[in-house]
Amino acid sequence: MRKEEAIAEGLSLVEHSQIAMLGTNGGDGYPNIKAMIKAEHEGLKKIWLSTNTSSKRVAQLRQDPKACVYFVDFDHWKGLMLVGRVEILQDRESRDRLWHNGDERYYPLGPSDPDYSVLRFTAERGNYYHSLSNVDFEL
Amino acid sequence: MRKEEAIAEGLSLVEHSQIAMLGTNGGDGYPNIKAMIKAEHEGLKKIWLSTNTSSKRVAQLRQDPKACVYFVDFDHWKGLMLVGRVEILQDRESRDRLWHNGDERYYPLGPSDPDYSVLRFTAERGNYYHSLSNVDFEL
Repeated sequence: MRKEEAIAEGLSLVEHSQIAMLGTNGGDGYPNIKAMIKAEHEGLKKIWLSTNTSSKRVAQLRQDPKACVYFVDFDHWKGLMLVGRVEILQDRESRDRLWHNGDERYYPLGPSDPDYSVLRFTAERGNYYHSLSNVDFEL
Repeated sequence: MRKEEAIAEGLSLVEHSQIAMLGTNGGDGYPNIKAMIKAEHEGLKKIWLSTNTSSKRVAQLRQDPKACVYFVDFDHWKGLMLVGRVEILQDRESRDRLWHNGDERYYPLGPSDPDYSVLRFTAERGNYYHSLSNVDFEL
């Protein structure tokens, strides 16, 4: 598989995924994983997520922004891992961008709830596999 | 949720999962994730997986055995993260233990194929969540 194909197939996987696995450094030398709702993406370069400011994940990312985001279609042996860094955003524009009706369940104060944080992941490189094809690429 | 309940619900999640997400340290400071077939488990303490000896994952685990194994039922907001260490095994008993008919597709030389490795993960602690309940426990 050529890199262009891997990137195109990886993008299709992201478009069809509602869930992303976020990998972080746990601070004690162990990697951590959490499944999150994929809120938005800009190609493969930026992945937007949201979570509680008070969460372990945010504390870990403040210590070390290095992370990976993984998408998988296990039934078809497809997977995409993006490696990069996460910014924790609380500006109004970013919060409004990801806010949906009903999110008050989690953040009672609305988009300005201090416990509502936006995570913007920026990929530096990626790996896509499909069956036995496996391709690394820069982004 | 009490710890005993969290461990019991976590075990049920493992029993119903065919897939496990393996988190490793990439060697460059970035965490990595790969979806793998969960081959066997002994309670929550040991998770058995298998993979290619020549794979990136095995090279990473040789450098740093610290890992996590994550199981998720996203539809029901359940997730279990186990944190611990991975041993890479190539003894005959471990290989025979996980071998299934048809695995020759991946390892043409059979259970003694040098590219066939067994990963035995031993959990040190865990975290289970279900909706808004979230419990840490030692193992």
